[in-house]
Amino acid sequence: MNHKGTGSITARPRLFIGLMLMAAWLIPSVAYASSGWSPEPNTASVFGWLVIILVLARLASLVERVGQPPVLGEILVGVLLGNLILVGVQAFEAVKVDSRVGFLAQLGVVILLFQVGLETDIEEMRRVGVRALLVACAGVAVPFLAVALLVGPVLVPGLPVTTYIFLGGTLSATSVGITARVFRDLGRTQTPEARIVLGAAVIDDVLGLLILAVVSAIVVTGTADWGSVAWIALKAGAFLLGAIVLGNLAAAQLTRFFALIHTGIGMKFTLAIGFALTLAYLADLIGLAPIVGSFAAGIILEPIHFRQFDVPRIIDEVRGLIRGADPALKSEIGAVIEHHADRHVEDIIEPLSYFLVPIFFVLTGMSVKLDVLFNLPVLLVAIGITVVAIAGKVMAGFAAGKVNKWVVGWGMVPRGEVELIFAATGRALGVFSDELYSVLIVMVVLCTLIAPPVLAYLLRKSAREA
Amino acid sequence: MNHKGTGSITARPRLFIGLMLMAAWLIPSVAYASSGWSPEPNTASVFGWLVIILVLARLASLVERVGQPPVLGEILVGVLLGNLILVGVQAFEAVKVDSRVGFLAQLGVVILLFQVGLETDIEEMRRVGVRALLVACAGVAVPFLAVALLVGPVLVPGLPVTTYIFLGGTLSATSVGITARVFRDLGRTQTPEARIVLGAAVIDDVLGLLILAVVSAIVVTGTADWGSVAWIALKAGAFLLGAIVLGNLAAAQLTRFFALIHTGIGMKFTLAIGFALTLAYLADLIGLAPIVGSFAAGIILEPIHFRQFDVPRIIDEVRGLIRGADPALKSEIGAVIEHHADRHVEDIIEPLSYFLVPIFFVLTGMSVKLDVLFNLPVLLVAIGITVVAIAGKVMAGFAAGKVNKWVVGWGMVPRGEVELIFAATGRALGVFSDELYSVLIVMVVLCTLIAPPVLAYLLRKSAREA
Repeated sequence: MNHKGTGSITARPRLFIGLMLMAAWLIPSVAYASSGWSPEPNTASVFGWLVIILVLARLASLVERVGQPPVLGEILVGVLLGNLILVGVQAFEAVKVDSRVGFLAQLGVVILLFQVGLETDIEEMRRVGVRALLVACAGVAVPFLAVALLVGPVLVPGLPVTTYIFLGGTLSATSVGITARVFRDLGRTQTPEARIVLGAAVIDDVLGLLILAVVSAIVVTGTADWGSVAWIALKAGAFLLGAIVLGNLAAAQLTRFFALIHTGIGMKFTLAIGFALTLAYLADLIGLAPIVGSFAAGIILEPIHFRQFDVPRIIDEVRGLIRGADPALKSEIGAVIEHHADRHVEDIIEPLSYFLVPIFFVLTGMSVKLDVLFNLPVLLVAIGITVVAIAGKVMAGFAAGKVNKWVVGWGMVPRGEVELIFAATGRALGVFSDELYSVLIVMVVLCTLIAPPVLAYLLRKSAREA
Repeated sequence: MNHKGTGSITARPRLFIGLMLMAAWLIPSVAYASSGWSPEPNTASVFGWLVIILVLARLASLVERVGQPPVLGEILVGVLLGNLILVGVQAFEAVKVDSRVGFLAQLGVVILLFQVGLETDIEEMRRVGVRALLVACAGVAVPFLAVALLVGPVLVPGLPVTTYIFLGGTLSATSVGITARVFRDLGRTQTPEARIVLGAAVIDDVLGLLILAVVSAIVVTGTADWGSVAWIALKAGAFLLGAIVLGNLAAAQLTRFFALIHTGIGMKFTLAIGFALTLAYLADLIGLAPIVGSFAAGIILEPIHFRQFDVPRIIDEVRGLIRGADPALKSEIGAVIEHHADRHVEDIIEPLSYFLVPIFFVLTGMSVKLDVLFNLPVLLVAIGITVVAIAGKVMAGFAAGKVNKWVVGWGMVPRGEVELIFAATGRALGVFSDELYSVLIVMVVLCTLIAPPVLAYLLRKSAREA
């Protein structure tokens, strides 16, 4: 807030000095990263790369100023760094293949899905009910079927059927994070439209991860008969359900056991992260994506599991101080601090996410090959896929019943994490060529770019009419 | 605190169920880690290893129950895991050489020294004054000179002079963390003895890092003439001083510039971590250890640099609520929340430290080869070095003036992070053989094991006499 107090006259020289210092900070980093062009650059070079990635990704949060979500900025930074080789700068080619940076990125996406899981409330999903479910199913089915059966084979003919299925799957999910953020930025989280969209987006993510599990397994095992699809869907469903039922029992017992040893915040943190990583590797063990496991871990863990552990000292101290306060103030402050005590696990995971998640999205952007888009047919395919991706979600809005259907539909358009994970998985499995992968990243970027202004227009229009 | 309410009758079955569940949790992890015996195990195997390392390291915090610092437990867990091969279990041999786990450990120690730097107050160092400086210098000089010139060449004759210098250096520092913790656990942080010991321990760490910088550079460049020693000492001193002076100016400008873009907590986090990693790699660039850089970064950054950034929502909310409270309560609660607002940067770094620091200490322990200690000469050397390490610090206590000199001396005995970093650096540079490295780890473990009970005895005795 403070920065708003500085007028443009004092802000200018400060901006200039800041830019100079930032250049002085980043230029040697880039030079150093460039010099580290060996098969295994030393630890300090990786520190240098991380500084560049993290600082540029954070600077890219400037896109928020024009109503865009930060994830978009992070991807664009990645696209920029990854394509510097087109103008002769080789510095970042080593980053693309470094196993240590790659591992941090993988860890980042596991943590991100764990966070999404932590924020997902099964009860809330049940409450938004049938309409959200209808919108979610329509929003998955329409773009998936349209691309897998029709648009895919027409626009890019001659590819294996698994590629079309993967392509359809990539269009199916909605970004919970981006969608929630757009509504929050516009102060509309309490409208029925927002609740339907958020509910549907959560269901979409689960459906999307299920589809990802199924299609990945089809690709890996090489079989696409309906029997094995059903088996994989069953396995994925059973894993999620089993993880939730057994995990809930285990989480309660394990947290109680560890609380006997130590109730410190470090123990709380280790339990949460240990749970996420354990389910991630169990998911991998039975052939699902690790992110499915960490998402399940997030759904399982509830504040109640951590009631026996310490809370931040600020909460203990304020609790002690308000003991003698007048009842009204006591209950007000008490409510605030108990709320924060409950979400403390989310708070202690957050810094890991600040550190690791941008690495994933920057690396994702870095693998986009801009040169493949320099030819017209590929660009046309990208635009075609994007149109289907948008139209499919907007049409799904019509399943929402008596609300503003256009708002619901456009609310489902932003794409984000799950699509990028889909695209990255498809690329890692060899299902998507460099061209197709780049097409999908362009689709994600365009959907995420176009939706917020349209949504803002629709919401302002409906407010005028009401 | 809650766990204290459960009596032993209800605790028993809970403990049993907990142990069973923990076994069910860890056994498949171990089995999985064992199966991952390939040159580049997949990402999910690394997740499995991390779970084992983090959970066991955290369980090792049980040593706190018998008055021992957690770092000791973490090292012992590492020693255990690293020597399972002696009983035929090969599962953890792949962990020792994995570049991804090794990188996380390196990042961990950089973060740890950054935290120590953040907690170090230059003003406070100045205030504890001459006595702390005397104790620190004596505590560094006595063991350093005794080992480098006399005990080293006598106990392990025939090694290059750089090894003796490195050996002396390894004995020179005191663990700020462990020392502070011992005094805090005994409720004696406000005694003059405690202030002298803590002040001296901080100066010791700086001196230790300077010595590390100097001796590492001697080993790398291969020259040991006094001219180059002076040059390296000058370079290290100039780096620390330059980093502090220029860094202070840069930190103020950079934080102001970034606050113009965004004042979110993510930005605050990125600035702090970016600063630490930048100085770590600059230190590496001019030939110093990266930890020297991150320690300097921690000293430079002050709460005032982050005044323009957001604070956790709980602070904003409580600030709003107490506006109308009665003045006494308002100022009490206000003081608490402003204190926490100021230390917020330390709080957002802490979870990274929970995640990464145990990996460093467990990996440190894993590189101890127990079998080399199975022969009597090596064991005798370990005991000899340990005796010098303890005697040197106890003698340094006599420089403390009119306080309980034995308390000051024994307060300096615990060894920890810096010694382990010294030993690990020496091993990486090829200065220490496996035998000598293991000897030093034994020295650190023994010093850290012996000091707390002796200190507790001395403090209780002096309390009785007073």
